[in-house]
Amino acid sequence: MSLSHVLFGRRLANREAKGTKIGAVAGLAAMGLDGLSSVAYGPEATLTVLMPLGALALGPLVPITGAVLAVLIVLYFSYRQTIAAYPKGGGSYTVAQANIGPGAGLLAATALMLDYVLNVAVGISAGIAALVSAAPALQPLTLPLCLAVLAILTLVNLRGTREAGLIFAVPTYLFIGTLLVVVAIGTAKALAAGGHPVAVVAPPAIPAGTATLGLWLLLRAFASGCTAMTGVEAVSNGMSAFKEPTERHARRTLTAIVGLLTVLLAGVVVLSRIYRIGAMDQTDPGYQTMLSQLTAAVVGHGVFYYATLGTILVVLSLSANTSFTGFPRLCQMIAVDGYLPRAFAIPGRRLVYSAGILFLTGSAGILLVAFDGITDRLIPLFAVGAFLAFTLSQTGMALHWRQALHDPKVSGSRGSLRASLAVNGVGAIATGAALAIILAAKFVEGAWITVIIIPLVFLLLSGIKRYYDRLSSRLRAGRIDFTDREPPIVLIPIERWDRLVDKALKFALQLSPDVIAIHLIALEGDDVEDRSAILRRRWADAVEAPLKQLGVPVPSLVQLQSPYRQLAEPLIAFIRETEQAHPKRAIAMLLPVLVTQHWWERLLHPNRTTMLQKTVLKVCDRRVGIIIVPWHLDDQSADPDRSGARPSNPARRLHDTITH
Amino acid sequence: MSLSHVLFGRRLANREAKGTKIGAVAGLAAMGLDGLSSVAYGPEATLTVLMPLGALALGPLVPITGAVLAVLIVLYFSYRQTIAAYPKGGGSYTVAQANIGPGAGLLAATALMLDYVLNVAVGISAGIAALVSAAPALQPLTLPLCLAVLAILTLVNLRGTREAGLIFAVPTYLFIGTLLVVVAIGTAKALAAGGHPVAVVAPPAIPAGTATLGLWLLLRAFASGCTAMTGVEAVSNGMSAFKEPTERHARRTLTAIVGLLTVLLAGVVVLSRIYRIGAMDQTDPGYQTMLSQLTAAVVGHGVFYYATLGTILVVLSLSANTSFTGFPRLCQMIAVDGYLPRAFAIPGRRLVYSAGILFLTGSAGILLVAFDGITDRLIPLFAVGAFLAFTLSQTGMALHWRQALHDPKVSGSRGSLRASLAVNGVGAIATGAALAIILAAKFVEGAWITVIIIPLVFLLLSGIKRYYDRLSSRLRAGRIDFTDREPPIVLIPIERWDRLVDKALKFALQLSPDVIAIHLIALEGDDVEDRSAILRRRWADAVEAPLKQLGVPVPSLVQLQSPYRQLAEPLIAFIRETEQAHPKRAIAMLLPVLVTQHWWERLLHPNRTTMLQKTVLKVCDRRVGIIIVPWHLDDQSADPDRSGARPSNPARRLHDTITH
Repeated sequence: MSLSHVLFGRRLANREAKGTKIGAVAGLAAMGLDGLSSVAYGPEATLTVLMPLGALALGPLVPITGAVLAVLIVLYFSYRQTIAAYPKGGGSYTVAQANIGPGAGLLAATALMLDYVLNVAVGISAGIAALVSAAPALQPLTLPLCLAVLAILTLVNLRGTREAGLIFAVPTYLFIGTLLVVVAIGTAKALAAGGHPVAVVAPPAIPAGTATLGLWLLLRAFASGCTAMTGVEAVSNGMSAFKEPTERHARRTLTAIVGLLTVLLAGVVVLSRIYRIGAMDQTDPGYQTMLSQLTAAVVGHGVFYYATLGTILVVLSLSANTSFTGFPRLCQMIAVDGYLPRAFAIPGRRLVYSAGILFLTGSAGILLVAFDGITDRLIPLFAVGAFLAFTLSQTGMALHWRQALHDPKVSGSRGSLRASLAVNGVGAIATGAALAIILAAKFVEGAWITVIIIPLVFLLLSGIKRYYDRLSSRLRAGRIDFTDREPPIVLIPIERWDRLVDKALKFALQLSPDVIAIHLIALEGDDVEDRSAILRRRWADAVEAPLKQLGVPVPSLVQLQSPYRQLAEPLIAFIRETEQAHPKRAIAMLLPVLVTQHWWERLLHPNRTTMLQKTVLKVCDRRVGIIIVPWHLDDQSADPDRSGARPSNPARRLHDTITH
Repeated sequence: MSLSHVLFGRRLANREAKGTKIGAVAGLAAMGLDGLSSVAYGPEATLTVLMPLGALALGPLVPITGAVLAVLIVLYFSYRQTIAAYPKGGGSYTVAQANIGPGAGLLAATALMLDYVLNVAVGISAGIAALVSAAPALQPLTLPLCLAVLAILTLVNLRGTREAGLIFAVPTYLFIGTLLVVVAIGTAKALAAGGHPVAVVAPPAIPAGTATLGLWLLLRAFASGCTAMTGVEAVSNGMSAFKEPTERHARRTLTAIVGLLTVLLAGVVVLSRIYRIGAMDQTDPGYQTMLSQLTAAVVGHGVFYYATLGTILVVLSLSANTSFTGFPRLCQMIAVDGYLPRAFAIPGRRLVYSAGILFLTGSAGILLVAFDGITDRLIPLFAVGAFLAFTLSQTGMALHWRQALHDPKVSGSRGSLRASLAVNGVGAIATGAALAIILAAKFVEGAWITVIIIPLVFLLLSGIKRYYDRLSSRLRAGRIDFTDREPPIVLIPIERWDRLVDKALKFALQLSPDVIAIHLIALEGDDVEDRSAILRRRWADAVEAPLKQLGVPVPSLVQLQSPYRQLAEPLIAFIRETEQAHPKRAIAMLLPVLVTQHWWERLLHPNRTTMLQKTVLKVCDRRVGIIIVPWHLDDQSADPDRSGARPSNPARRLHDTITH
């Protein structure tokens, strides 16, 4: 059993593709982690921006979260419609490309790709940061821990989406379950106490405010809260991962994610207000997250408290997994359209797009190493990509419905089309406005970087596409036109008469009556005794005489000087002469090759054939082909006439063996 | 002008080999540095062993050096005879192989190779140690300085032996000149003062003795003194570097080296005794070498003192250069005989054996890095190899003369043959005795390591030889036997109909009437729409119909399932089937290859052909050859029938382009 078998599992056949598909239960874990885990940081990000208000911060928290949830629900209905309209995979790329244009599609794809990569780096480092704050002894291991999580995610995803969904299902559902319990108990207590419950463990007092409420503060708080929405796109991008009927499974998954996210966000925010929980400064001693304070207030510092915080920590580091589901599928789509190398479109041994997974791992790994596992500064870049893609997708859907509305061939009631147009139109306006707010609010903190990176990647991808298009037009072939039917002239570089050459020569004579053996003289300096005369005698005796007897066209032996001991140059010069002498004929350079079976054998044979092959292919004319005739060490296919072999001379043996 | 041109100079033609040859003047610098520089450490090594005797140490110093010089002079006459008897290069390897046997030859070669490598590492580190003791600020740079000297030596020697001789001639002759002046002035002063001259700068007093004179001490002192002889072999090993008449130039070089070495050694030792100079402990503050004390005593601390010490320092680090002349030539000889890979026998662009030079650099570099630039502990290993080689060479020469003496065909007087036998016989006994003393005296200090390494290298080289011999006997070919004259069956893996395939197919049809195109279905998973039907239609239209019209045998199109998306496996299975169906015919796998011109183009084309070529060559039967038909991006050789080309579909273009 090979190592790759142990690591990745057996190779899957195409017909097993169905077995790798997932339903809503695994889908929630494979695609929902990013979205759901944002409960752990979305409200906190909002509240942190508001904290200069002091205790008054809890006032605007609920309406701002309400606004975020409103955008989320608009997005939900928009994406339901998108899934229905594009059941084969309706990410922003497809929708924007089909309805706005290829440029818009590529822009959406670029934005999403950036966001996916950032999500991996930021997700993993946030998870490890939480772990390190719980166990400060691990502090020096931050980067190795980040890379270890990255390696685990890569490995699990290379095994297949289904496996990833199943493996990550346990922590995901534990996370959802424990948080729901906290929200439920907290709500029950609050209702029982008439809105004024007593905290089991009282949260720290909120310090006095230093600022007053203003529009800019509200907008910044809203922009921070919007990070909670970044994972919503994953489902419509990952349609191809779902079981038949894909539409139903995808819609169920989306509903579950958005439903749970809404309940948890609303619950956490409302209970935080009721229990008067503030966002603490991470640099203060005794720092606790909002969820830590809330859980302690509702259930106290028991086993359940630690279980809840433990699952939050695991889910945060695994939230990167959503990218591993979405990114490779996105790359596959744009690779099929020619924006990325073909390798991204080829399913690996487990039917996932391994190239995309490895590229994502590489990019995220570089980010983690470059920032030493602390990617905090990347958070402001986050969400720009997602909201740019949302806006393009929603605009695309709106255009889609408007076109359908004006198309007399489309059946269905105009009213329902108009309703759809309204939903996506509102979606486009809401996400566009959110994008503008996010960009403005976070521009100085780092969002400006995305304004540079997205166009650069866009240009790179367009360049690749142009290259493939040009190649494609050059390669387009019409009907075959076979006029020059003469066989090629076959040239064989040889150094002596041995069984390699014997076999190569027979192969050449089967192909063409015009065979020329070329011997390069003085390849090893003039000091070494002249072997060219020996070869000439041997050639006359072992090749010319027997072939004449058989009536076969006799190959000629050409001996060329190589005064500078170069292999390729004299051969290429001879090829050029031959081409000029025979302008209509193709030329084949036949190379006898000794096939080695062990790595140490390669050390004992200078690898001149590979070099020669590369040089000839690169510099020669279009009419020159290469023919390789292998000779295996245990090759007994042509038993030589041993009686003709001379007694061996030890001092000469080396020269009889290994130049080919 | 390329980088290699600047570094190494222009490529030299074989006919320029004469111009690279050297005479005695350059020969002394190229081959004498190791021997001559030993004046700087030989007497000191002897005296250091004797120092426990205190001031009495100077007593035995002169007779011990006399014994060393006696062995040296025996060696000189022996090697004069060897040069005359083997004018094409008479190192220990050649002499021992010819007169004792191949095993003895290889043993001598192994011993010498080890010594050459040690000489590089020890010579460079000793030179840098002298520099560092003069300028302690450089201490932390020891290893980088060692590696820099190694790099300079490598570069200069890759430029050619003549260049190395010329470049190193200046420091060599400065060294000889200044030391001769010191010896001459010292001797004149001593004579003028009746044997009791007054030192200009008095040497430090010699501490009182703690031991008494014994045989073991004398033997150890003698063994240490023998290191002065290690470079003598270089001349007879490097015969091929000399101008015609080689024998005369070689003999002159040898005479100059041994003569100068004798004068300098004797002068230094006698003057040291007269001026009462002792060997100081290197760890003591104010440490000075014997030569430093002697020069100061003779000429005082003037400019000349610093000039003399400066040349000693340079020559010590350059003494490694002797290895760069001897080692590659030795490797070339044993590579010609099959004990080393062929690459060691091929002259590089400047007609030196670059492989040997680079191997020497690599081994010495590893030693320097492993010992952090301080290779003191390797010094006891030194000289064992040289004296093993000397003994084998002298024994070989003695056997040579004995055989000649008993051979009636050999002309010349029996008396002169007997004299030659006597010289080499005495040489064999003297060097053999010295070897025994060195091994015994230094065994515990590290000479035991050579007893392990030499047999291991010996076994490795014999193993290489056996491999080549077996290969050679397998490769020996008799007269060609050409019975199966049918052309091969040509298989072409294709993915679509394009100009790559168009060109490949024409090439194939020129070679054989039996051409089969193979299309692998579902290489990219079942999700991608079925292209096999499209290809079938295109094939009928663009290939079958036109070829039928022309009356050409129509190639068949076979479509194979590749359920696991593998490229090689289904093709190899098909090859095996074809072989069984046609047991007498050869098979050629023809691969259309897109030739890229830039590195970034390679990123855009999956390199599947190279992989396929390797796999097929490795696992397939002996009857399968590979044919590569290149297609350049600007290939216009076959203008397609553009009228037949369909309008391009952007979403499909990628699949039309890049799998080959």
